[in-house]
Amino acid sequence: MNTKEVYGSLDEQVYEINISRADKMNALTDKMYGSLVEQLKFAEESDEIKVILLKSDNKHFSAGNDLADFLETEFNNDSNVIQFLMTLVQLSKPLVCAVGGAAVGIGTTMLLHCDFVYASAGTKFSVPFIKLGLTPEGGSSKLLARRIGMIKANDWLMTGRTILADEAFNSGLVTGVYEDIESTWKETKATAVKLARSPASVLTQTKELLNNDRQEIIDTIKQEAKIFAACLETEEAKAAFNAFLKK
Amino acid sequence: MNTKEVYGSLDEQVYEINISRADKMNALTDKMYGSLVEQLKFAEESDEIKVILLKSDNKHFSAGNDLADFLETEFNNDSNVIQFLMTLVQLSKPLVCAVGGAAVGIGTTMLLHCDFVYASAGTKFSVPFIKLGLTPEGGSSKLLARRIGMIKANDWLMTGRTILADEAFNSGLVTGVYEDIESTWKETKATAVKLARSPASVLTQTKELLNNDRQEIIDTIKQEAKIFAACLETEEAKAAFNAFLKK
Amino acid sequence: MNTKEVYGSLDEQVYEINISRADKMNALTDKMYGSLVEQLKFAEESDEIKVILLKSDNKHFSAGNDLADFLETEFNNDSNVIQFLMTLVQLSKPLVCAVGGAAVGIGTTMLLHCDFVYASAGTKFSVPFIKLGLTPEGGSSKLLARRIGMIKANDWLMTGRTILADEAFNSGLVTGVYEDIESTWKETKATAVKLARSPASVLTQTKELLNNDRQEIIDTIKQEAKIFAACLETEEAKAAFNAFLKK
Repeated sequence: MNTKEVYGSLDEQVYEINISRADKMNALTDKMYGSLVEQLKFAEESDEIKVILLKSDNKHFSAGNDLADFLETEFNNDSNVIQFLMTLVQLSKPLVCAVGGAAVGIGTTMLLHCDFVYASAGTKFSVPFIKLGLTPEGGSSKLLARRIGMIKANDWLMTGRTILADEAFNSGLVTGVYEDIESTWKETKATAVKLARSPASVLTQTKELLNNDRQEIIDTIKQEAKIFAACLETEEAKAAFNAFLKK
Repeated sequence: MNTKEVYGSLDEQVYEINISRADKMNALTDKMYGSLVEQLKFAEESDEIKVILLKSDNKHFSAGNDLADFLETEFNNDSNVIQFLMTLVQLSKPLVCAVGGAAVGIGTTMLLHCDFVYASAGTKFSVPFIKLGLTPEGGSSKLLARRIGMIKANDWLMTGRTILADEAFNSGLVTGVYEDIESTWKETKATAVKLARSPASVLTQTKELLNNDRQEIIDTIKQEAKIFAACLETEEAKAAFNAFLKK
Repeated sequence: MNTKEVYGSLDEQVYEINISRADKMNALTDKMYGSLVEQLKFAEESDEIKVILLKSDNKHFSAGNDLADFLETEFNNDSNVIQFLMTLVQLSKPLVCAVGGAAVGIGTTMLLHCDFVYASAGTKFSVPFIKLGLTPEGGSSKLLARRIGMIKANDWLMTGRTILADEAFNSGLVTGVYEDIESTWKETKATAVKLARSPASVLTQTKELLNNDRQEIIDTIKQEAKIFAACLETEEAKAAFNAFLKK
């Protein structure tokens, strides 16, 4: 199940999944989304695992979709990226995430499905879909406003601007900010281990009560994906993608 | 379509609507609401316009309803003020707003329907319906809590107190605060022009995804208007209006 | 109706209910919940009362459920604690609350049903259900996220950590913070008296508009109580209770 680019390991009832593609700032390919689904489902089903920790093993979290790979892959509701999002939404176990460096596009929207998010002070978040001629994905059109409020969700999604860690914290996107990536990893692990000391059933029931509208989120992701797919076919998006890939 | 008190102009695909009644702090009359509806509908339908900018051309944004005019006008769901709110809710194009000075009553509640709101540092917001023996309007009973949280919505609506620009920003009512009204107008225009560079369909689809509960807002405005109309008939409201008009 | 541990008094159309069990940090027994229901219903029905003020008469607000008493009482939807919560949700009159010292468990979750909450600077809030092997109650699984945002609600409910007054204010749990308990009581009373000067019908209609989803909250409280009751029967919860009671 472990690959060079996505691998997991178990320690103190916490299953740590690492994204590892440092030379591409952990841009995510179709294959990597498939691996992430496999890892998450394994963690969800194992009786030895109580908490899931998601991170990268290098300074960036994720530059988002690998655009070159994305253009070569058919995009629909069966795509690995959509399966990845659906798996995140349906996790019954707590999901704790550590981020640093770039957290772009789905590198930010996947955080909306995490129960805890810790960021290093240098993290730069953005949801720049509009700059590529694209619309919000990953449930962000609903969940971002819910986490950071409508006025900020409008701003972040309609301008695509970069958000620094302090603003992300003050806005309600992240649980806490630490000085550097090493301390962020350390503190995230400490939170995960602490959570794992609670009875498994209490953890999942607490999470279930806090997330009793999963079907609504799933519907939103599907609706967004349909509009996103149509945008991909426009001349504007194609031109924006080409300009980006030539950089 | 342009009148002395409400006029619009087009520049760089941004349609700027100005409220202009400086001697009355831009208090809004039935006629002005009618003009605003006309301007907004024109902007919504024109293919040359991608973003709408709403502001006043003097230091105050709006003192709210012109009470003397309001008392002379029949109030029901066909009134121009309700048509103005309904038009705001149903806009498909981004609406960017610049405010300064007084933003009272509907001068604040109309902001809840804007995608971006920039304020000068001296802006004073308030929703003082209760001081006139009246109930929340403009969708504020639902949208204010959604933008600034329930504990603050209770406070602002039940006390009617004045909110300074910094608190409005920290609470999530406004997108950003600038030093004075000139810089606020300049930066608001810059945001609008930047937005207008995105494909029109992406702008409207992004806004649509972020506002997928318009019917709920429309229903709220109608429900509020019914209660508001009943309040207008009470002795308490009449006494409060008279006291206000004698000032 | 007044007892040594829960008593009320009327002044300037404000009915002040005091919790008074200083030697147990105002831990709440089944009998006290019954008294609170009686006091709240009296205040709700009296024509002389426009605003309800809830506080303790000593430095702590409430250490939460009295665990020893709780274990001796049958817990179901007819229990006084559930009737207390249901009464809070259904109040039509504004409820203003002053807190200080410890506000633990239901000492925090009952605040989610108050329209205004003022805290002294030394107040320590917590919802440590998970530490007792229990799940969220009092509507907190829905209302906490609504008041303070999802990322903080996850944190507070899944770790059970202590929240200081400043964080509670910045998060949107409380309306305002004052230096000490005496000034908190004084300012809370001042707000209540000010509110009571508005017409009674405007106060209740404003509150009704702001809380138009009461049935959803009632359903949440019932669903939470069912899961909570099942948790109480687990070995983990029994062990946690015993450890706590031996302290």
